[in-house]
Amino acid sequence: MADPDDVAGPAVAGDGSADPVVRGRGRPRATDRTDAILTAAGELFDEVGYDQLKVQDIADRAGVGLATLYRRWPTKQALLAEALRRRNAAFDRRLEGDPRQVLQSVYALVAGATMGPRGEFLPGLLTAIRADAELAEALRVGVIDPLRTRIRVELEELLGPDHPQLGLLVDLVPGVCVYRALAPGETGDPEQLVAEAVGLLDRLVSTTTRP
Amino acid sequence: MADPDDVAGPAVAGDGSADPVVRGRGRPRATDRTDAILTAAGELFDEVGYDQLKVQDIADRAGVGLATLYRRWPTKQALLAEALRRRNAAFDRRLEGDPRQVLQSVYALVAGATMGPRGEFLPGLLTAIRADAELAEALRVGVIDPLRTRIRVELEELLGPDHPQLGLLVDLVPGVCVYRALAPGETGDPEQLVAEAVGLLDRLVSTTTRP
Repeated sequence: MADPDDVAGPAVAGDGSADPVVRGRGRPRATDRTDAILTAAGELFDEVGYDQLKVQDIADRAGVGLATLYRRWPTKQALLAEALRRRNAAFDRRLEGDPRQVLQSVYALVAGATMGPRGEFLPGLLTAIRADAELAEALRVGVIDPLRTRIRVELEELLGPDHPQLGLLVDLVPGVCVYRALAPGETGDPEQLVAEAVGLLDRLVSTTTRP
Repeated sequence: MADPDDVAGPAVAGDGSADPVVRGRGRPRATDRTDAILTAAGELFDEVGYDQLKVQDIADRAGVGLATLYRRWPTKQALLAEALRRRNAAFDRRLEGDPRQVLQSVYALVAGATMGPRGEFLPGLLTAIRADAELAEALRVGVIDPLRTRIRVELEELLGPDHPQLGLLVDLVPGVCVYRALAPGETGDPEQLVAEAVGLLDRLVSTTTRP
């Protein structure tokens, strides 16, 4: 509710008219609308998925002209990349606590994003990146690499930097989440998955002090 | 080389003529060609992926008529399901040894099937199952469920049936493999992944004797 990014977004989405927020006081410079544009891109990505994501809809929701938006982000991929990168960075900054707490929060985020309703868009996105190197790079830089880095940093603090299964453990929760979201059959409960992952880490912590 | 399923397969695939093996001695009943048909279906699936898999090509490679094949398997999905189920069952029967050895073999199979060249077809397949409930069911029954069951049985023997992270561990290696095959960024080395997974199990075995 208090997120400043939300000021223009939802209010504009409903009526479809362009730029109602700036009407009567002149169009502000595009840079002023950066937050609204990136928030709208992230929201629409969550709501409709990558295939159905349209730059025009993002412009409408953010209350800016299409030309303004394209001047700054020449492609849909570039815009989405920055939106996801900014959102992840904001989430990352908010994470506080000991490594176990942080990992639990990251795991919950990943499970929610893949095994919940948002996970519906995963196959379309993963198919699109096969044919779209720019999108693949955007996702790698904006989502996958930061996620891997944050998990690795916390795991190194929790288990030590030389833990022999660190590489596998970095991808454990994202991997199981994506697999359960995509593979036909049991999906399981995201909260149970997070609890088991943290329980596994606790078990490993108790063995890392051994030689 | 000594696999009886291969007798007719590759020899027929090259020249495109139908039924050369049975020429001059009458067409045998379709049931006689079951092995060749299912082997051809599995081979072609590995070679071209689900999207490009054509029943006519399977019939050609197995040296049977298209009508014969459709009489027994009314859809491509039904045929592929039986081919994958039979192949998995054959692999399953060959697995011998203690649970740790069996899991290592299963992990190596999964890593090879997803992170190697065969993994290229994974996104197409995972997208296809979203729009094709019959294919999804076929993959669940033929591949995912048997894989989960076999891994679970071995893990229960290794770690005990009440291990609190059993559900997570069942999907650990398939999950990380699928994630690395699909997500943009580092893929990593399949052999290293298998080694880390077995190392993790060894570490857990050493803790399961604790209360």
